Amino acid sequence: MTAHSATVELAQELIRRPSVTPEDAGCQELMAERLKAIGFNCEFLEWGEGSEKVINLWAVRGESGPIFAFAGHTDVVPTGPEEAWLFPPFEAAIHEEKVYGRGAADMKGSLAAMVTACERFIANHSDHKGRIAFLITSDEEGPAEFGTVKVVEWLEERGEKITWCLVGEPSSTAEAGDVIKNGRRGSIGGWLTIKGKQGHVAYPHLAKNPIHLAAPALAELAQEQWDQGNEYFPATSFQISNINGGTGATNVVPGHLKVIFNFRFSTESTHESLIERTESILNRYGLDFDIDWHLSGEAFLTAPGDLVNAIVSSIKTVSGIDTELSTAGGTSDGRFIAPTGAQVVELGPINKTIHQINECVSIKDLDNTSAYYEGILENLLAQK
Amino acid sequence: MTAHSATVELAQELIRRPSVTPEDAGCQELMAERLKAIGFNCEFLEWGEGSEKVINLWAVRGESGPIFAFAGHTDVVPTGPEEAWLFPPFEAAIHEEKVYGRGAADMKGSLAAMVTACERFIANHSDHKGRIAFLITSDEEGPAEFGTVKVVEWLEERGEKITWCLVGEPSSTAEAGDVIKNGRRGSIGGWLTIKGKQGHVAYPHLAKNPIHLAAPALAELAQEQWDQGNEYFPATSFQISNINGGTGATNVVPGHLKVIFNFRFSTESTHESLIERTESILNRYGLDFDIDWHLSGEAFLTAPGDLVNAIVSSIKTVSGIDTELSTAGGTSDGRFIAPTGAQVVELGPINKTIHQINECVSIKDLDNTSAYYEGILENLLAQK
Ligand SMILES: [Zn+2]
Ligand SMILES: [Zn+2]
Repeated sequence: MTAHSATVELAQELIRRPSVTPEDAGCQELMAERLKAIGFNCEFLEWGEGSEKVINLWAVRGESGPIFAFAGHTDVVPTGPEEAWLFPPFEAAIHEEKVYGRGAADMKGSLAAMVTACERFIANHSDHKGRIAFLITSDEEGPAEFGTVKVVEWLEERGEKITWCLVGEPSSTAEAGDVIKNGRRGSIGGWLTIKGKQGHVAYPHLAKNPIHLAAPALAELAQEQWDQGNEYFPATSFQISNINGGTGATNVVPGHLKVIFNFRFSTESTHESLIERTESILNRYGLDFDIDWHLSGEAFLTAPGDLVNAIVSSIKTVSGIDTELSTAGGTSDGRFIAPTGAQVVELGPINKTIHQINECVSIKDLDNTSAYYEGILENLLAQK
Repeated sequence: MTAHSATVELAQELIRRPSVTPEDAGCQELMAERLKAIGFNCEFLEWGEGSEKVINLWAVRGESGPIFAFAGHTDVVPTGPEEAWLFPPFEAAIHEEKVYGRGAADMKGSLAAMVTACERFIANHSDHKGRIAFLITSDEEGPAEFGTVKVVEWLEERGEKITWCLVGEPSSTAEAGDVIKNGRRGSIGGWLTIKGKQGHVAYPHLAKNPIHLAAPALAELAQEQWDQGNEYFPATSFQISNINGGTGATNVVPGHLKVIFNFRFSTESTHESLIERTESILNRYGLDFDIDWHLSGEAFLTAPGDLVNAIVSSIKTVSGIDTELSTAGGTSDGRFIAPTGAQVVELGPINKTIHQINECVSIKDLDNTSAYYEGILENLLAQK
């Protein structure tokens, strides 16, 4: 049996704790022990009641100065049928230089890499500048109601502000470090009801057909150029996912039409501007309508600066990779941290197997990720 | 107990036969007996199998010359809850000078009036010109598959052609004879599927949203002026009755959109012209689509001429009413007869109570209807 790196061994220990959302299963306790040993002050923060109770860890090293925070989650999505896995999903088996298990890539491997990166960095730089922090939740894969959102509020109440935030989400495509996410599109959904007047198709003058009334407005919404995007984002897109009108009867003009749509938006738009423009188009067509809006997350962007430069240079130094900056893909808890003014970037292993049967992470990627994280700390916090 | 007219008594006899579609319950046999007695040659024509079997009556008096046909149906719609009726629906009770029962107005009263009109006319004109016929089905209120359509085909095979057709459907509004129907709008329905490509709302460039693609085409269809109508018809109208796209999931671009629509059309359009124009609009927007068309009936119009004049003058003579020509309302079996080139007009009692609880017809309207029918025979077929 080969000896593995500290990062691999810690990743295995974390994977063996079956922390399906919102369970933490002792992962944060394990991380806190290691962090305390190198001078972190650890606080556990709980919100929610009963089966919705969520535990979060806030750990800080250093008394003052700008905060560099590692952010992540200990919870994992369910395994699906365990018999479909090559190895039991909470065993953390190693096979062909990969660690298998639920959470291996999303994101217990990253959590292990954060801890071991700090252990090595602090061994050499116990007098680092500023502060190093961990913001760890067990509620990222679930409703995300009592996790990062609450910790961010709690920090604001204490007057604390994160300057740089490294989210350990698996950002990479072919090997760890080839892609980092320096922003995310925003997402907002609308549940639209257009009201008409029910009637019989033979007597159209007594009815008001909401489908006819809505069609030109929907055509305009579908064709609207919401923005042009920018260097980091594609243009904002509007998509209707559902449209339903009519009772099934073929001789009845329906009384209302229901439409569900979604915006994925760049930093050139805000949710307020999209709401205002959507409603103004609908009003221009004289429609009688209701919309329920649901904001999933505002768009954010961390333009090249301190944090991006520190990350790009660390990756280049460790593995020679010229990393790609991307804002594609779904949301992460970065959406809750970016609005506080923090620079937020996501860097973690390959995301190909996440949420799937046989989720895995390669040992090489784990060790490289830990080395990237250490290099970032060097670049931002080492006393020169 | 007052003695009632032969028309009222025959209407009662017919109502007492519970001929819910496709049952005839002996109504045609009863009519045929009366018609044979005054020199009609009667043929019973059956189509369909088992519970779908439909009986039809074709009766003719006269050897040659133009055919004047009374057309009608012995079947009735179901009664609904019998306890809700003032009188049992197959009792044909008389109350306040009205006959109550299912079919009283639609259209056993008219059938009785046709028979008694012939009895009186033939008593005075046994040597009438041309031929008098009855085209009676028991399948008008149902699928109308083995009724008038089949009789018309059978007549064509025999080389027979109806010149004038008086359909006994209840055409009147306030008193028998105030409105006649000298045409009907056509009706055609389309079941449209617009094909796109399913995908995720976050990756719109990989999907083709059929709702977005269809919206401008539907807007144009809804705004299109199909024709201006004419003296007898309102403009053709297009109405979407149902639209459905999407799986319910709010992050999925659906793969197809389903739309059901209907045209009610004037004689300024034909079903062919509407199909061609609809498909050409859809093609102009580059849509990938399928449509299943279902033609319920072509529009038809019987412009003022022999038949209309004979009817208008008979009504004026009998009751002093200046009748109104109308093409409003739903379809009738006239739609199957008009395409053969026949002049087709509908004249019958008030339609206010048809298909409802407490369907009824006034004795005065029954007797007037019979007198109108007799006058029409006089005007068209009496030897002068
Ligand atoms: Zn994750
Ligand atoms: Zn009828």
